[in-house]
Amino acid sequence: MILTVALNAALDVTYHIDQSISPHSTHRVREVTAAAGGKALNTARILHTLGESVVSTGLLGGATGRQIAGLIPQGLRHSFVSVAAESRRALVVADPDDATGFWEPGADVTDAEWSGFLDRYAGLSAVARVVVLSGSLPPGLPIDAYAQLVRIARLNRATTILDCDGSALHAALPERPDVIKPNTAELAEAVPHLDTGDDAGVVDAARVLLRAGAGTVVASRGPEGLIAVTDDGHWSAAPAAAIVGNPTGAGDACVAGLARGILHGQPWPSRLRGAVALSSASVLAPIAGHVEVNDYLRLRGTVDLRDFVVNNQHVSDNTEEQ
Amino acid sequence: MILTVALNAALDVTYHIDQSISPHSTHRVREVTAAAGGKALNTARILHTLGESVVSTGLLGGATGRQIAGLIPQGLRHSFVSVAAESRRALVVADPDDATGFWEPGADVTDAEWSGFLDRYAGLSAVARVVVLSGSLPPGLPIDAYAQLVRIARLNRATTILDCDGSALHAALPERPDVIKPNTAELAEAVPHLDTGDDAGVVDAARVLLRAGAGTVVASRGPEGLIAVTDDGHWSAAPAAAIVGNPTGAGDACVAGLARGILHGQPWPSRLRGAVALSSASVLAPIAGHVEVNDYLRLRGTVDLRDFVVNNQHVSDNTEEQ
Repeated sequence: MILTVALNAALDVTYHIDQSISPHSTHRVREVTAAAGGKALNTARILHTLGESVVSTGLLGGATGRQIAGLIPQGLRHSFVSVAAESRRALVVADPDDATGFWEPGADVTDAEWSGFLDRYAGLSAVARVVVLSGSLPPGLPIDAYAQLVRIARLNRATTILDCDGSALHAALPERPDVIKPNTAELAEAVPHLDTGDDAGVVDAARVLLRAGAGTVVASRGPEGLIAVTDDGHWSAAPAAAIVGNPTGAGDACVAGLARGILHGQPWPSRLRGAVALSSASVLAPIAGHVEVNDYLRLRGTVDLRDFVVNNQHVSDNTEEQ
Repeated sequence: MILTVALNAALDVTYHIDQSISPHSTHRVREVTAAAGGKALNTARILHTLGESVVSTGLLGGATGRQIAGLIPQGLRHSFVSVAAESRRALVVADPDDATGFWEPGADVTDAEWSGFLDRYAGLSAVARVVVLSGSLPPGLPIDAYAQLVRIARLNRATTILDCDGSALHAALPERPDVIKPNTAELAEAVPHLDTGDDAGVVDAARVLLRAGAGTVVASRGPEGLIAVTDDGHWSAAPAAAIVGNPTGAGDACVAGLARGILHGQPWPSRLRGAVALSSASVLAPIAGHVEVNDYLRLRGTVDLRDFVVNNQHVSDNTEEQ
C-alpha cells in the first residue's frame, strides 16, 4: 500500500470569467468549479486511477476541509485528521487568455492537533510500503514536521518519497528520506552555489543533497524530463517529444510514477520511464491530478532513456515493465 | 419590526495580498478575512447596530451558507431557509493600491425551495411593519420573485422598500412597491430615454417609475446625496461635505436609514436626513455594512436639505428627529 500525506490539502477552486482579468475592477464569475487538491491528493488520485492500493491521509479543517473530503473520488480510501482552522483554497481565475492564481496560506494547526496526527500517521505508515510526503506545510506546524514523518516511516520500514522545498526540505534531509524530487527551481534554491543549467550541473547539485542525507535525488526538469542521482550512478529519462497542455500537477504525476515503481520493486530506469510517462499523460489531461490510462500506456513506450551511468560506466537499458 | 430579505446572500471574502495584482501570474495570499454579506444583510447589520428591531431572512445554501450564518452578528435575529446549492462568495482581492472584485453567480434555487421560502416569508412579513427587499436574484428564481414578495407584503400591510435593478425591478413595479432606491446608473438603465445628468432629469426619470407603480423613488447619487420623488413633490438631501472612505455598502446604509424613518413614522425630510447621514457614516467605516453610531449622530446634524418642493411650492424643513 502507498500512503500519501497531505498536510496542507487544498480546495482547488476555478473561477471561469468571460473577459480578460482587469486589475482594480469587478468581474462577474460565469462558473465556479472545485476539486480536491494539493500535491499529495493529486498523487493519490493518479495512483487510484492506475488501480494501485493507496490511502490518503493528512489534515482537513472546517467547512473547506469537509468540502475537500466530499470531493475525494469514491473508492479512494482516506483517513484524514480534523483540525479546527479552515483548510485553504487555491483559487485560479481562468480567463480566455490564461490563468491567475491566488494561494491561501492554509489552516493554522495547533500542537495538540499535530500530536494527534502523528498518532494516526504512526498507525497508517506501519502498514504502508511507500509513504509519499508532498506539498507545503500549513502555518503552525514545526519546520521539522517532515523530518518527524520520515523518521517514523523509517522505523516502520516504509520507503519515503519527499516532495517539498525550502527550509522544510533542509530540515528533513538529516532523517534520510529515501527519495526527494526537487524541480529545477527548487534544486537551484537548495544548492544556490552551483550552476544547475546543464545535466552535469544537476548531477553535481543532486550529489550535494545526497551527502546531506537524501537516498536518491530525482530532479524534474519539465519538458526535459528527469535525472535520478544515487550513490551508485545516475539515469535520465525524457519524453520523446514536447507535450502541449496543462503542466499543473505534472510533478505530482511524476511522484505517483516513482511511488508505483518502488512499490513494484522496479529498477531505476523503469521507475523513471513510468514517472516521465505519467507526467506527460497528466500534461495532456485538462485537470491537474488526472491522467487517462491509455495516454499513460501509449507514452510509456516512447520515453527516451538518454543517459544511463552506473559506477561511472555507461550501460544499456534492457528493462521494461508496465 | 423591520424584515430584511437576502435572496442572494454572500460570503464576503477578502484576500489581502502584499503586491499589486498581476494578471496571469500567481499570488500568495497573506490573510483571508470573511464577513456575512450581500445588500440585505448589510442593511440588517446597520439597523441592528442602531438598536432597531430587525429580523433577517432569505436563502442560504451549503457550506458557504453555513459560514454566512455563523458570521451574522450575535443578537441579530435571523430565520433563513436552507437550499441545497452553495451560496455565493463575493471575493475582493485587496492589494496595496486598490481592490479587484470577483462575484460568484449564487446558488441555483429550485421551485420547491422557492415555494418553501414563500411560506416562511408569509409568516415573517405578517409581523413586520417594514420589509426591505434588496440585492440580485440568484439563478433559478423567477424574474417576478420580488413582485411576489411585494404582493405578499402588501396583503400583510407591511411597507416595502425594494432595492434591485434591471428586469427584477421592472417585473416588480406593477405590484406597487412603496419605495424603490435606484442609484444613478440604475435609474439611467431603467429609464434610458431620459437624461438623468441633473436634478430635473432625475425627477423626470423618477416620475416615469412612479407611473409604472413605485410609491416613492429615492434616487441615490453618491456624494451628491438623495432625491426622493413622490406624487406630492420631491425633496433632496446631501452631505455637507464630501466624505472620503469606502463607498461599498453606502447604498445599503441608505436603505437602513429609509427603513428606520418609515418604521418611526418620520416625514420624508427626516427620512432623507437619516439616510444621508447613515450613508456617510458607512463610507467612513472601513468595512461594508458597518457604521459607528457616533459618526451617524454627528453627521445627521450636518445634512444639507437642499431642495424641498411640495405641490410645486418650495417649503422649509422644520422637522428634526433622531
